[in-house]
Amino acid sequence: MDNLIIPPALGILGMVMAFIVYKLVMRYPDGEDKVKKIGDQIHAGALAFMKTEYKYLSIFILVIVLLAWYALGPYTAISIIVGAICSSVAGFIGMYAATKANVRTATAAQKDGPAAALSVSFYGGSIMGLCVASLGLIGLGGLYYFYIPAEIDPHKLEGFAMGASVVALFSRVGGGIFTKSADVGADLVGKIEAGIPEDDPRNPGVIADNVGDNVGDVAGMGSDIFESYCGSMIASIAIAYTLGNQDMMMLPLALAASGLIASIIGIFIVKLQSAKAPASALRSGTFLAPVIFVAMAYFIIDSFDGVGMNVWWCVIAGAVGGVLIGLITEYYTGGGPVKKIAESGETGSATVMISGLSVGMQSVVIPIIILAGIILISTQLSDIYGVGIAAVGMLATVGITMAIDAYGPVADNAGGIAEMSGMGEEVREITDSLDELGNTTAAIGKGFAIGAAALAALAIISAFSAVVGVANPEFSLALTEPIVLVGMFIGVCIPFLVSSITMTAVGDAAFEMINEIRRQFKEITGLMEGTAEPDSEKCVEIATKAALKKMMLPGVIAVSMPAIVGFGLGAQALGGMLAGGLLGCVSLALMMANAGGAWDNAKKYVEKGNLGGKGSDTHAAAVVGDTVGDPFKDTSGPSMNILINVMAIVSLVIAPLLSI
Amino acid sequence: MDNLIIPPALGILGMVMAFIVYKLVMRYPDGEDKVKKIGDQIHAGALAFMKTEYKYLSIFILVIVLLAWYALGPYTAISIIVGAICSSVAGFIGMYAATKANVRTATAAQKDGPAAALSVSFYGGSIMGLCVASLGLIGLGGLYYFYIPAEIDPHKLEGFAMGASVVALFSRVGGGIFTKSADVGADLVGKIEAGIPEDDPRNPGVIADNVGDNVGDVAGMGSDIFESYCGSMIASIAIAYTLGNQDMMMLPLALAASGLIASIIGIFIVKLQSAKAPASALRSGTFLAPVIFVAMAYFIIDSFDGVGMNVWWCVIAGAVGGVLIGLITEYYTGGGPVKKIAESGETGSATVMISGLSVGMQSVVIPIIILAGIILISTQLSDIYGVGIAAVGMLATVGITMAIDAYGPVADNAGGIAEMSGMGEEVREITDSLDELGNTTAAIGKGFAIGAAALAALAIISAFSAVVGVANPEFSLALTEPIVLVGMFIGVCIPFLVSSITMTAVGDAAFEMINEIRRQFKEITGLMEGTAEPDSEKCVEIATKAALKKMMLPGVIAVSMPAIVGFGLGAQALGGMLAGGLLGCVSLALMMANAGGAWDNAKKYVEKGNLGGKGSDTHAAAVVGDTVGDPFKDTSGPSMNILINVMAIVSLVIAPLLSI
Repeated sequence: MDNLIIPPALGILGMVMAFIVYKLVMRYPDGEDKVKKIGDQIHAGALAFMKTEYKYLSIFILVIVLLAWYALGPYTAISIIVGAICSSVAGFIGMYAATKANVRTATAAQKDGPAAALSVSFYGGSIMGLCVASLGLIGLGGLYYFYIPAEIDPHKLEGFAMGASVVALFSRVGGGIFTKSADVGADLVGKIEAGIPEDDPRNPGVIADNVGDNVGDVAGMGSDIFESYCGSMIASIAIAYTLGNQDMMMLPLALAASGLIASIIGIFIVKLQSAKAPASALRSGTFLAPVIFVAMAYFIIDSFDGVGMNVWWCVIAGAVGGVLIGLITEYYTGGGPVKKIAESGETGSATVMISGLSVGMQSVVIPIIILAGIILISTQLSDIYGVGIAAVGMLATVGITMAIDAYGPVADNAGGIAEMSGMGEEVREITDSLDELGNTTAAIGKGFAIGAAALAALAIISAFSAVVGVANPEFSLALTEPIVLVGMFIGVCIPFLVSSITMTAVGDAAFEMINEIRRQFKEITGLMEGTAEPDSEKCVEIATKAALKKMMLPGVIAVSMPAIVGFGLGAQALGGMLAGGLLGCVSLALMMANAGGAWDNAKKYVEKGNLGGKGSDTHAAAVVGDTVGDPFKDTSGPSMNILINVMAIVSLVIAPLLSI
Repeated sequence: MDNLIIPPALGILGMVMAFIVYKLVMRYPDGEDKVKKIGDQIHAGALAFMKTEYKYLSIFILVIVLLAWYALGPYTAISIIVGAICSSVAGFIGMYAATKANVRTATAAQKDGPAAALSVSFYGGSIMGLCVASLGLIGLGGLYYFYIPAEIDPHKLEGFAMGASVVALFSRVGGGIFTKSADVGADLVGKIEAGIPEDDPRNPGVIADNVGDNVGDVAGMGSDIFESYCGSMIASIAIAYTLGNQDMMMLPLALAASGLIASIIGIFIVKLQSAKAPASALRSGTFLAPVIFVAMAYFIIDSFDGVGMNVWWCVIAGAVGGVLIGLITEYYTGGGPVKKIAESGETGSATVMISGLSVGMQSVVIPIIILAGIILISTQLSDIYGVGIAAVGMLATVGITMAIDAYGPVADNAGGIAEMSGMGEEVREITDSLDELGNTTAAIGKGFAIGAAALAALAIISAFSAVVGVANPEFSLALTEPIVLVGMFIGVCIPFLVSSITMTAVGDAAFEMINEIRRQFKEITGLMEGTAEPDSEKCVEIATKAALKKMMLPGVIAVSMPAIVGFGLGAQALGGMLAGGLLGCVSLALMMANAGGAWDNAKKYVEKGNLGGKGSDTHAAAVVGDTVGDPFKDTSGPSMNILINVMAIVSLVIAPLLSI
């Protein structure tokens, strides 16, 4: 089958594109001495974290690979390795490029104005987007190219998603703890105790804070989306394999390949329009790419003899659903609810908390109903295979979605660099407006990521039950089976436990950071006066150590729980656990992400001069909300997506070993 | 069957006991002029609220009764009416007695010392406990006595639980909104703005605050436990009926009857020991009553020919599980976690929020694992009937559990009355120590209520699927059925939605209360100086109106969602919805109740002089936690219990009308 070569070949083309974009970024100057130095510090700090993280990670992965080799043979082990490598490489390149683009964005804002700054920062994000999409196609498409003609059991492919999701979990949790401990630590001591502005170069924690944006919001987010992207394809392949349909097996890769093309076109559209109107440029990219993809999907599905046109509607359900969930997220983190939270700040921080939690809880409802709608439609059209394809449809244009998402932290970083190097008010205004735009698109991206992860997880769970069901015809996941219920109860606990652990981790890590920053302000003479330099590296080191130490427990829980429940209580209990875990993860993810986003923007709303503006009591109350929202939206919330996917994919991989 | 008369007869005996205890309470003097007046104001306010509430409620119930009569015939309608009346009467008498006991507790503390004060307050709570247990037996046992020999379909009994649970929902939600809006309003204006102490008689909101303790924590809690108690019995009866086993049908009532006897013995034990050591007296009552009950259960089960001794172990699993969940709750709301939250107050209110939410999330895990354990054990022993019996086993000693639970607000009220009437430091010390003791026992009671409600709901859901399954052998609640998944997704949203609504309701109602209290301080000349009286009635009226207005929407959602999903998407979707709703309700209930309890006690820990004590920054931060915790633990959290039970029982009642 010559067609099999197309997805990895397109993936290589995507990587070439990413390299070209990287060259475009590098053509912009990285600025004067001081700017360059700050940029280098951030770049070096981010790389140092990634290297240490990957060292720990490789030990963890090695253990998993050995276990998998022993229990499931060499091909699963190879798939895990390839998945882990692809995810790591995507994260690494994306972050490498982002930390080159941030300083160039700041310099472009200073020298060439807003349009150039938008170009550089969007290019910076696009590299991440292209890498995620391309490496998914190269890795998974490549394995498919070798395994399928050689008649290797397609189930062996599932290791790819497992490797990717384990990397994602560590990146997300580790990156999330890093970024928030640095952020909270730098803010509390710098802004409140020392009374210096945000991103002031005298603050020893600001470099760590800016490093955190890259390791958390760029690398972490990238690996998160990467694993949902690959997970949805693998789930669809696994389901198609249980149906014995070769065309249906190949379709997910073909759709993803066309999604990459649509994304590249989308990136061009944004670039062409960006000079005129940045906001509408990003928006048209977000909306046009899926439209182009859906049109291409029609012809692709039509060309597969073994696939009915019903499946095309599943693609549409997924693509439209993803956009809708994004828009709902935008409303809750940017519309009326934000104003209401800000206003509740007039009666103090307690009412800010109550209204924010209330908004977060309410925001769970519609996205979940949309997910239910997608499930209903896609299963009516094409049974559980439809759910997998809907997930693929939602995620196929990941190239552009991820590009727009990663653009935000690049712009944010550029603002930090502008502030630290004293580039002046006008430059800061440009970067602020880019950042604000990034916040809105990032909100859409976050909602999209949760929806996509939920659908991908559901597809994997469906694949799990199909795989177990093929081997054991009497297998049942009926809610009337007590053991299924027991599994569901266990499953719903896990997201609460992991959220609790990660929130505590941020608090503990921030505490260490606070002590270090306080120490430096006390012991380094001349620091406050600007005559001595802070020891920024020490802060990066503390955040790195704390993140790596604290990410182990959630990682171990996520990977081991399916094995413990599966081997201890059987496949039925495990199926129940996944269902309970899915419900818990999705609802908590939405609640925490949206409450956090809404608090963040409520604070920004006040800072714009509303309700008394900066320095008012209302502002102080809003800052409390934002501080609570930080671990919500950037640590605990996003780890929920991956948690359920890790648990689901581990279950799918070990499915052949389980008794019911 | 002459035995059928025993449960209602014992129920009548229990009511006689309650009357005797009431007479004992009334033998204590209600105090001097000022004390008496305050007591009368609270009593009158509570009665006024209950009367208005029941007026609204009766219209709502009437609609439901008419619909049920039309769709399911007269016997279901009669059952609903009887259930609603029994629940209302239990709540009314219990609260009537509690508002007589509070003022007498304060006076006894002043005149006769701590032992007498404990006696009166515990008697006051016992009346509620006895009423709940007795009216359950009279109502349900009475219907059973008439229906079964007359060969009326036993499913018609289910209306009883439906009537009870609808009343419970309104009492809990309405009472919860009342109590917290009054509490938050009185505190914010009184303590913070006017700078007068808590429970100061000049504050127009304090009477409403004290009324709230009664309508929320006494009447609301009573109706909550009442509906779980009856729900567990009815679920067991329904499951037994699908098995066609008369003995198994009768067993739940027999167990509950023996539980009432054990509770009465427990109340005696507490009374006998209370003079020596109050804390250990309450504790021995809590632990001995279940032991006595379990011993009695052995002989009862042995005497039923159609029931195996396996069932006895289900009773033990439930009774032991209930105590264990209570102890876990006590740990999270009183042990190390509370100290940790208080300490996090040293870095401000944001860290108090983060650590409290983290504790709340963590506290979900072990109770849910215990529930899973109970399910596993009881179903192994006696299939789903075992779950029902485990729930009955947990709830049979409701007489003593509820007595100890309701004692807390009586003691709390007594403290308020002592403060308002200026009884002096010593009296306040006695009532404070009683109150503190009450907080610990109330924490145990709350955990127990959640566990019991979850088990009762699960039993009702099992009965629902058994009933639908008997009529439609092909009925399946398999997670692999897309429509079941869709139902589960819808189900998990509902608790988030209702929590969001009730939290917002408290905020809105508190806002009105704040404006009224501010108005009175401004417009009534001489109020601050103590020469003029506040218009307390107006505040009671505002809280009443707000509570009644805001309780409608959650009530309508709870009652209508099963009908909408059941008739719209079918019985499979409804089964899924109940499962998703159960997971969401239990986990949110635990999280909110425990986070709220922990915040409350962290504040009290600081107020005792730790970490800087009252007036310190740490205290201010802890107060924020407590204020957020108020709607968590007393409004939104407790409404979760009933929400899932209402949805489950409505589903069970409409089950015969559904197609799959």
